[in-house]
Amino acid sequence: MIKKIEHIGIAVESIEKSLPIYEQLLGVSCYKTEIVSSELVKTAFLMVGDSKIELLEASDPNSTIAKFLSTKGQGFHHIAFEVDDLEQEISRLSQLGFELIHQSPKDGADNKLIAFLHPKSTEKLLVELCQEK
Amino acid sequence: MIKKIEHIGIAVESIEKSLPIYEQLLGVSCYKTEIVSSELVKTAFLMVGDSKIELLEASDPNSTIAKFLSTKGQGFHHIAFEVDDLEQEISRLSQLGFELIHQSPKDGADNKLIAFLHPKSTEKLLVELCQEK
Repeated sequence: MIKKIEHIGIAVESIEKSLPIYEQLLGVSCYKTEIVSSELVKTAFLMVGDSKIELLEASDPNSTIAKFLSTKGQGFHHIAFEVDDLEQEISRLSQLGFELIHQSPKDGADNKLIAFLHPKSTEKLLVELCQEK
Repeated sequence: MIKKIEHIGIAVESIEKSLPIYEQLLGVSCYKTEIVSSELVKTAFLMVGDSKIELLEASDPNSTIAKFLSTKGQGFHHIAFEVDDLEQEISRLSQLGFELIHQSPKDGADNKLIAFLHPKSTEKLLVELCQEK
């Protein structure tokens, strides 16, 4: 079951430059930064109600975020929904014909198990499913 | 004060075609469709936890959504944050140097007062502020 919008991922050229803008916009301070080595990405999180904004900066030119920034520029990158049972959701969506980038849960940022859907299944919207570990 | 992510606006070519995909993805049914004449847009809403997904279809070729679709295609359009006092938020953000498209609250969909920030103030992310009427 999909429970809520867990976070919105936003690609930025530089967290150092962008974070103060988002902190001012939202009126809150970043509560965590984290480097996700497997994704070659640096992240910064801000709480908004029961959801989060996740800023994403490439930590390496070969990062998917670096490629995204070079073609699309800064802005919205993905939406992440919290689920109660990630394996069950992967199975439910696969049976409905959605294509998943990850067929089984993998480690993500912020102490989560995650799986991404292929954007061609979701009309170009990049969708992440995540479950608290 | 910004309270939460009220909704995520997603531009689609056709609500009739896209809505079943989002209903399957989220495992919920659309609870409301609404035509916003002033914006030349047709909307469909789905609940996800305490937030909403708002599908946006152009109801006229001169709609800003039609222009968006013709240049960027389907996908994420804007993020809307619920605020407790929209006039106060407009004032707070203006003083911080954010540029607003709407300097004062205007009527939006879903029984809301709304104001959009100019995306050049927010690194290309289109941001809406809204307050329940």
